[in-house]
Amino acid sequence: MRVHIRNTTILTMNKEEAPFLGDIVIHNDRIEHIIHKDQQTIDPIILEQINHDDVQVIDGTDMVTMPGLINAHQHTPMNLLKGFSDDLKLMDWLEKKMFPAEAQMTPEDIYWGSQLSMAEMIRSGTTTFADMYMHMNQIAQAVEEVGMRASLTRGLVFHDDDQGARIREAIELVEQWHGQADGRITTMFGPHAPYTCPPDSLLEVIELAKQYQLPIHIHLAETKEEVITMRERYEQTPTQYLYELGLFEQLHVMLAHSVHLTKRDIQYLTGMRGGVIHNPVSNLKLGCGIAPVTEMMKQGITVGLGTDGAGSATTLDMFQEIKAATWLQKLDYGDPTVLPAYQSLQMATIESAKLLAIDHETGTLEVGKKADMILIDLLQPHLQPVHHIVSLLAYSANGADVDITIVNGQILMRQRQLITIDEQEVIRQGNIRAQRIVNGI
Amino acid sequence: MRVHIRNTTILTMNKEEAPFLGDIVIHNDRIEHIIHKDQQTIDPIILEQINHDDVQVIDGTDMVTMPGLINAHQHTPMNLLKGFSDDLKLMDWLEKKMFPAEAQMTPEDIYWGSQLSMAEMIRSGTTTFADMYMHMNQIAQAVEEVGMRASLTRGLVFHDDDQGARIREAIELVEQWHGQADGRITTMFGPHAPYTCPPDSLLEVIELAKQYQLPIHIHLAETKEEVITMRERYEQTPTQYLYELGLFEQLHVMLAHSVHLTKRDIQYLTGMRGGVIHNPVSNLKLGCGIAPVTEMMKQGITVGLGTDGAGSATTLDMFQEIKAATWLQKLDYGDPTVLPAYQSLQMATIESAKLLAIDHETGTLEVGKKADMILIDLLQPHLQPVHHIVSLLAYSANGADVDITIVNGQILMRQRQLITIDEQEVIRQGNIRAQRIVNGI
Repeated sequence: MRVHIRNTTILTMNKEEAPFLGDIVIHNDRIEHIIHKDQQTIDPIILEQINHDDVQVIDGTDMVTMPGLINAHQHTPMNLLKGFSDDLKLMDWLEKKMFPAEAQMTPEDIYWGSQLSMAEMIRSGTTTFADMYMHMNQIAQAVEEVGMRASLTRGLVFHDDDQGARIREAIELVEQWHGQADGRITTMFGPHAPYTCPPDSLLEVIELAKQYQLPIHIHLAETKEEVITMRERYEQTPTQYLYELGLFEQLHVMLAHSVHLTKRDIQYLTGMRGGVIHNPVSNLKLGCGIAPVTEMMKQGITVGLGTDGAGSATTLDMFQEIKAATWLQKLDYGDPTVLPAYQSLQMATIESAKLLAIDHETGTLEVGKKADMILIDLLQPHLQPVHHIVSLLAYSANGADVDITIVNGQILMRQRQLITIDEQEVIRQGNIRAQRIVNGI
Repeated sequence: MRVHIRNTTILTMNKEEAPFLGDIVIHNDRIEHIIHKDQQTIDPIILEQINHDDVQVIDGTDMVTMPGLINAHQHTPMNLLKGFSDDLKLMDWLEKKMFPAEAQMTPEDIYWGSQLSMAEMIRSGTTTFADMYMHMNQIAQAVEEVGMRASLTRGLVFHDDDQGARIREAIELVEQWHGQADGRITTMFGPHAPYTCPPDSLLEVIELAKQYQLPIHIHLAETKEEVITMRERYEQTPTQYLYELGLFEQLHVMLAHSVHLTKRDIQYLTGMRGGVIHNPVSNLKLGCGIAPVTEMMKQGITVGLGTDGAGSATTLDMFQEIKAATWLQKLDYGDPTVLPAYQSLQMATIESAKLLAIDHETGTLEVGKKADMILIDLLQPHLQPVHHIVSLLAYSANGADVDITIVNGQILMRQRQLITIDEQEVIRQGNIRAQRIVNGI
């Protein structure tokens, strides 16, 4: 089975290669050929392949084809709660709204909430996401059916009443789902955050991650309050706490948020495997602050992008994060040259792929990599005239400009119609369930 | 001629009225009726009017109808330069890119650039804009043809070589166009900024504005550099300079940007007629800073929203400004309750209308006001489930969700198809002209 995308502007995101006109051929789940238009002679073997009857042809004229966006930090089922509790103090938001609402969620709610979230992601150009939540079996099921690529993590908040149940669920997820769905699903271990994971529990998770040779996904230093709490409890910063427990020694670790870091904290992270997930929209909307993204990058730390859950960010449009990421650094430095457009697009593609430890498979358009890509319709007033495609993508495009979304060689959206999701049914289920959850509080 | 919008969710933006289900009837250019669904009996006279043959019916099911957005600070023809010069230092951007490019622009370029800008605005829900540029005759012509509402201003930068030509053009604009195009076009006087208008020139413009009884549109304190320049030149802040010259005494004044204001500067503005246009995206992208919006509002100063020209902001999507405005205040105060969703929508509608001195005619949905409104398609994954419509509009909607745009009772877009603009031709002209302008530098 082949897909042939013809006459498109290709932005590979590979080593700062400039956009060029050409064709892309997908064979099953992988990119088979990337053909530059200016190459006069096409290999006859390729010609025979793409002129075959069973090749699905996509006309890419006036479109940019680029790697699918990778949302490196999500809580997908919170899509059922978007807009439910905006403009509240963080603790009111969490304790009076989010926790009581989440307590009402059934496994079926998780399934449908995750589907709704995926519908929104596919429609805005996201092909891969990292999720941390509960009832992960339902989410894995939804991912398998929908066709996205995902890194799944059972969030581990340690309470006295837990009796090891969450850890058992985390292990079940890893054993049942890692590498499943044609390899689209990977898993990690997800200790929630320094302030919700006492040293013994965290050490237990670190041992598990080493045993299964899997990465860790954890929140870090999202709020000032967290820094104060950790200082009172351990006389350490949250970052120092993780460092001293040996989290960064051998493991690949994804650190969500990382807003409140000292210069010394950044030193602790220097040389780490994995890196930091920047969530600028969530950080803005909850008034958390500006993460020291430029400073971390200077130290060689990988920084990717994520939306956080819709409960905080409201929107899951990664183009919004691309804009917000570059804006915030320009604001922080009072300098418009900081974090230019291309770098912000890198954060949403290859840098996020590195965080998810799947950059050998996705994050750029390269022959042999998995066929995860999006086609963006440029022929619209807000994307014309075309002086610099990269600038237009970073500063003017939004999720609604994505016309086609392809994951693992499968077309998940074409002409803005979802193919693997029954959109009407997902919206209907989402509304019924959201209403029941809110009424139950 | 009547338009009957049926079964829609109406958000009037009038005095914090909650959204309700109902119908809107437009008669010619004005809102004739707003009918609550829960009112069991509809006046038989109204029923007869709306059941008439020549009534155009719009099914508003699953849509929100709200006032059209008002972009209070624009330089429309700069649409030809969007993406041309991003990620540059402000002075490089201005002196090496914008000024040389603008010097290449013909009156026809201005006309087509303005049309392209209007295409983008209508498609993202903007019904009214305030423009400051040159060759205003061409822009007025384009506004007349396209059907938007606009407040037009000839930008006045005073050079020695000017010989009064710009002032004469400003007077011509006012005399020829104020009140034209069925009243859709109003005009102002536009001294560019404190640092480009010496005292004598500014006093001359103030006298003109008084003589014609028209408002003033001016840039203020966009950058730190401007504050330094004004201190060196006059030992005054830019705001103090305007205050001492008497600008705020009788005139209605719109102040664009107003990022770098001291506490005393805000005192100078307190009690002024008109107010401040906040341009958060442009301020972010050029690294200018965060305007003291919350502080100004506390002092009773009206604050509206604008995009600035596409040369700096790149996008003209006012939903982007709505998000950025609320985010920046939350960030500045470290408090997510600051500048909540509804207030940010007010800035983009009724508050901007007050700045343009047209709030008696537009900015809210009220019987008797001009019929300027947009219909937003809620039945999409990123706008579902509907817990709070206002939150979804402020934090998740974007310009592409606007299905219908109506100005002065005329439908300018329906099902995302522009009706008064030949979109293909505008894009074609935009590309040819943009290329010629850039090649000429």
